[in-house]
Amino acid sequence: MADANGASPATRQPILTMVDQRFLPNKLVYLNITDWEEAVHAISDMAVRGAPAIGIAGAAAICLRSAEFLRESTEVGPSLYLKDMIAAADIVDGSRPTAVSLHKAVDRCTDLILKSIDSGFTPAEVTQQLFDLVNKMIDDDVSNNKKMGHAGASLLTRPSNLITHCNAGSLATAFYGTALGAIYSAAERGMVKMVYADETRPLGQGSRLTVWELSQAGVPVTLICDDMAASVMSKGDIDAVFVGADRIASNGDVANKIGTLALAVLAKHYDIPFYVVAPAETIDFSLVSGNQIPIEHRHPSEVLMTPIDGVKVINPSFDVTPSSLISKIVTERGVYSPDQLYLLEEFV
Amino acid sequence: MADANGASPATRQPILTMVDQRFLPNKLVYLNITDWEEAVHAISDMAVRGAPAIGIAGAAAICLRSAEFLRESTEVGPSLYLKDMIAAADIVDGSRPTAVSLHKAVDRCTDLILKSIDSGFTPAEVTQQLFDLVNKMIDDDVSNNKKMGHAGASLLTRPSNLITHCNAGSLATAFYGTALGAIYSAAERGMVKMVYADETRPLGQGSRLTVWELSQAGVPVTLICDDMAASVMSKGDIDAVFVGADRIASNGDVANKIGTLALAVLAKHYDIPFYVVAPAETIDFSLVSGNQIPIEHRHPSEVLMTPIDGVKVINPSFDVTPSSLISKIVTERGVYSPDQLYLLEEFV
Repeated sequence: MADANGASPATRQPILTMVDQRFLPNKLVYLNITDWEEAVHAISDMAVRGAPAIGIAGAAAICLRSAEFLRESTEVGPSLYLKDMIAAADIVDGSRPTAVSLHKAVDRCTDLILKSIDSGFTPAEVTQQLFDLVNKMIDDDVSNNKKMGHAGASLLTRPSNLITHCNAGSLATAFYGTALGAIYSAAERGMVKMVYADETRPLGQGSRLTVWELSQAGVPVTLICDDMAASVMSKGDIDAVFVGADRIASNGDVANKIGTLALAVLAKHYDIPFYVVAPAETIDFSLVSGNQIPIEHRHPSEVLMTPIDGVKVINPSFDVTPSSLISKIVTERGVYSPDQLYLLEEFV
Repeated sequence: MADANGASPATRQPILTMVDQRFLPNKLVYLNITDWEEAVHAISDMAVRGAPAIGIAGAAAICLRSAEFLRESTEVGPSLYLKDMIAAADIVDGSRPTAVSLHKAVDRCTDLILKSIDSGFTPAEVTQQLFDLVNKMIDDDVSNNKKMGHAGASLLTRPSNLITHCNAGSLATAFYGTALGAIYSAAERGMVKMVYADETRPLGQGSRLTVWELSQAGVPVTLICDDMAASVMSKGDIDAVFVGADRIASNGDVANKIGTLALAVLAKHYDIPFYVVAPAETIDFSLVSGNQIPIEHRHPSEVLMTPIDGVKVINPSFDVTPSSLISKIVTERGVYSPDQLYLLEEFV
């Protein structure tokens, strides 16, 4: 996130720059977002997706609204400002339900706003603080991803064939990625023979984003349909599965992109380690188990473009993988068994 | 298969009529094929697909070639005819590798031709015999499907939620279908609450054919992406999986459309009965186990329309489900455990 050239405190115009992922891999289009509602739509329409990325985009949306409020309002008293910002935060919070990082990012912004106003900061000063917070989140995300990548790659003891699902890479984070961060780190060490990327229906995050991103980085990648993973695993030469996470319950159950659960069941059947790579903030200690995680259902047209009379369509965007199917959860604070996440509670 | 109006024995023009499945569900296009090479292309291009249907189409292609030979050749001596027909049979046999019914149908035609020529029948008479054979195969297929449907439906003891993969219905057979035959028969008895149909990437036999066929028949159907089956199963209300088969080894291993194996592993994990419905001729007693079944690999463009630099694509069209994951194999001769297929050897 940057400021437009020459923006003064009174007229500041922060700009959120992101790749519009809906055009990949055909076109690399950058969005320069200055309107907070546009940022919200980018989240709900999945121009930006991936738990860490939508957390940052959500915070950025609130920062954009704060700057907009300053420009629009002649009178910037704290109570009017507070009312407006809380309403905006609510809208950002509702833009996608499953990933906890979005809610946590909104909470961080709301906390900052309330505390700063209570401490006597002006709305203009709070806007600057929000701007700094977003950029800190970006820096922290990249730094955490590098740590996770290092820890995840260390789980591999030989050059390996890997499977991943959806996109948990640079395009799902500020940079580098979670599951793909581990793969990038492993590739740097010469430990990647081949990455099999599930195409990830219905939206094709694998076929559009992951294969593009890995091939750009020079990592060997093979695209498969989601229903081919079992066949590839049954040949006996897959060494590990790496996926990201949108929300992790305190018992280690993991909500991630629809199709993750199938891959975990298959990995268990074929005795292949199944690794989840996600920042510690993905853990939602308020939830006892994964069945409490709200699952987003998206529009049927994503699955079936032209409706067929008499045919129903369901489109759950996520599923929940029980902790019993997960070998390790890799965070920026190290590698944990799914039943030992309580060790992280003080840091989250 | 019918004769063109007024066709005399010397000028006979058999016509193979089939649905061109590549246009479904948008358009119901019938192909009226009179050219044997067009019939071969219909098989290799998957205008017709499904093991029983391509067996019949293969035999029809040979019959069409036989009629064409009669029309083209002034001299129809048996040895020239035999040479031509054996070459044609070879081409038909190679049009798709995995489904055994195609090879068996070609063998039946070749046997008939050789025996009839040896018995002194003329090429014109043999053409009529091939024509009759094709129509007998069609009648037998429908009759077998009804028996399988009845036997398969009897496995359900209460109104059920079912999952199926690919298309093993009227569009995969002469009529009624194998796995979908069981579902039609169950629906007639009021035993179907909902059929979840996997879309079946990359070619969408589920999303284009199965959901269309079931909805036309008034059977309740819900389309899911292949990577959603685990989520649906994990909710605990799926009662059985029904799939077809392209080739079954004598130990009960089943080759079927890619994605079947994943469904079988999931069904085992969630303790859901996994039923394979296929005519006894699908069993290839010459094969000890499923790893001897040749697996067709199709063009990468079926998976990824526009290639991406540096991205490999694999496209195996079938996978092999080991017998240990299969609850029952349903044939027109009854329901068998996969380890008891030897009981059928004398009938195949």
